[in-house]
Amino acid sequence: VTTALLGLDWGSTCLRAYRYGDSGQILEARAFPYGVRRLPPGGFAQAFAESIRDWPEVPVLACGMVGSRNGWLEVPYLPTPAGIEGIARALTVMTAPAGRLLYLVPGLRDPKRPDVMRGEETQIVGVLAQHQESLWRGTLLLPGTHSKWASIDDGMVTGFATMMTGELYELLTCHSSLAAPTTTATVGDESAFTAGVRAARDSGPAGALSRLFSARVRMLDGDLAPTSVADYLSGLLIGDEFRTAFVSGWIDNTAQMQIVGDAALCSRYQQAASIFGLSTVPTPEATAAMGLWHIATEAGLLATART
Amino acid sequence: VTTALLGLDWGSTCLRAYRYGDSGQILEARAFPYGVRRLPPGGFAQAFAESIRDWPEVPVLACGMVGSRNGWLEVPYLPTPAGIEGIARALTVMTAPAGRLLYLVPGLRDPKRPDVMRGEETQIVGVLAQHQESLWRGTLLLPGTHSKWASIDDGMVTGFATMMTGELYELLTCHSSLAAPTTTATVGDESAFTAGVRAARDSGPAGALSRLFSARVRMLDGDLAPTSVADYLSGLLIGDEFRTAFVSGWIDNTAQMQIVGDAALCSRYQQAASIFGLSTVPTPEATAAMGLWHIATEAGLLATART
Repeated sequence: VTTALLGLDWGSTCLRAYRYGDSGQILEARAFPYGVRRLPPGGFAQAFAESIRDWPEVPVLACGMVGSRNGWLEVPYLPTPAGIEGIARALTVMTAPAGRLLYLVPGLRDPKRPDVMRGEETQIVGVLAQHQESLWRGTLLLPGTHSKWASIDDGMVTGFATMMTGELYELLTCHSSLAAPTTTATVGDESAFTAGVRAARDSGPAGALSRLFSARVRMLDGDLAPTSVADYLSGLLIGDEFRTAFVSGWIDNTAQMQIVGDAALCSRYQQAASIFGLSTVPTPEATAAMGLWHIATEAGLLATART
Repeated sequence: VTTALLGLDWGSTCLRAYRYGDSGQILEARAFPYGVRRLPPGGFAQAFAESIRDWPEVPVLACGMVGSRNGWLEVPYLPTPAGIEGIARALTVMTAPAGRLLYLVPGLRDPKRPDVMRGEETQIVGVLAQHQESLWRGTLLLPGTHSKWASIDDGMVTGFATMMTGELYELLTCHSSLAAPTTTATVGDESAFTAGVRAARDSGPAGALSRLFSARVRMLDGDLAPTSVADYLSGLLIGDEFRTAFVSGWIDNTAQMQIVGDAALCSRYQQAASIFGLSTVPTPEATAAMGLWHIATEAGLLATART
């Protein structure tokens, strides 16, 4: 089978490399702990060389924090509204060691808030490519360290917002006075999680930030086991994303919504969504890898690969 | 001059000891880094002995985290509404090493939210004792790691709420992806601070939690120097306290308000208050020390001291 493209999903903590056949099938996948914040001694060049070692000399397309200010080469953001055509036209090419051409996907910038993303635009392209109808209109939620709420209309990202939910959860459960001294892991107390989601939903305009200390009070009161504090905080923070999304107009009860990402995390968000009366559609997997393929196809990189 | 009382303001990170003359004047003050979370090898007993060494054998009254679950002896909370009379009646006495009697001030619990405080109730008693009119009605704000907003009516704490502002500020500026890599200290960029307060004020029901990532976006956009991110976050978090206080009904533009605590921090909060159209009255100093004296007087501990 001919190798048509190499793709790199290169984020803050992880580098994933893909080798594609000429109909977009993934022939080989590799993962390295070489995020842009934890590179090997030889830096970007070494990480790059290791990730594509022994693979054919076809173009390489990369997305994510590799194109950020602290990445290998800072690539300008593309303003929203933006779709696959605009992204494919805005690739930046650089010459990597050994003369390899490396194409970088631009991040997106929503000038209205303002807000920025890098990497999620490629996941979004991957999700939208799987939709049966190209005119899908709705909200894509990509939960994580920095959750993204993206509004989609006719294949374009019309705007988006970032919530630092995953990072706040880690700070509060690992470093704060709310952290249980005996455990940092989530035990999986579903009722504590849903209690947190409901507390956020019912917090009104004050919001869940004003309720964080309630995790400690509930624990002192004996209403919450010390090992369940993390689950309660998870519910409080995820619930506040939905509360914020409603009051900010990112979502309403008539909109279509899809949650994209890690299966366990998506499952928590789907639980929270149902508490807010939202139904969500199933999530495809490996969306970044699919997005890289579709962007490369749109940009005509594959033709180059076959010469 | 006769020593009438010894007082201990014993919190999470610090132990302050006071020796009072018989009209309540402070004859001597000492400070130790022996908070209940960082005791010397000999534990509470050693910290206690060092703090009052060579002082006369009069009763000792202590407030703060020393009476918490992780303190020396857990003292039940007193429910609000509560004032100096109720607090003075609810002291717990324990026998410390060498047969010394140690009286502990109860914390307060607001059953309506629910919420709890330990130590701030003594500061509040100290502030209210300085008021010319005993029927003062208004809001006392005690900023800090866990800021307290207390509603006061006729010398009683009628209710209160905790915001984890100081702790969130430390987590975000020391441990998060928003922290500037080159500096953790606040540079003192007033315009960044006030911009943060205004952003929180104008964040509507979504609140400042949804705007935290804007600190990074503004920095990437060049609107905020990396060294000013901490000031911007400080403004965002303090501003969100005031936003929350308004939407939660803890404060309105007709209420009297007093900010109590560390002078530099109070100054920041006063700036924020003025951006929200609130005027605040000047802050007395050493309120915990004064509160201990007034509680001991109300409880009749001084008479014991003179026998």
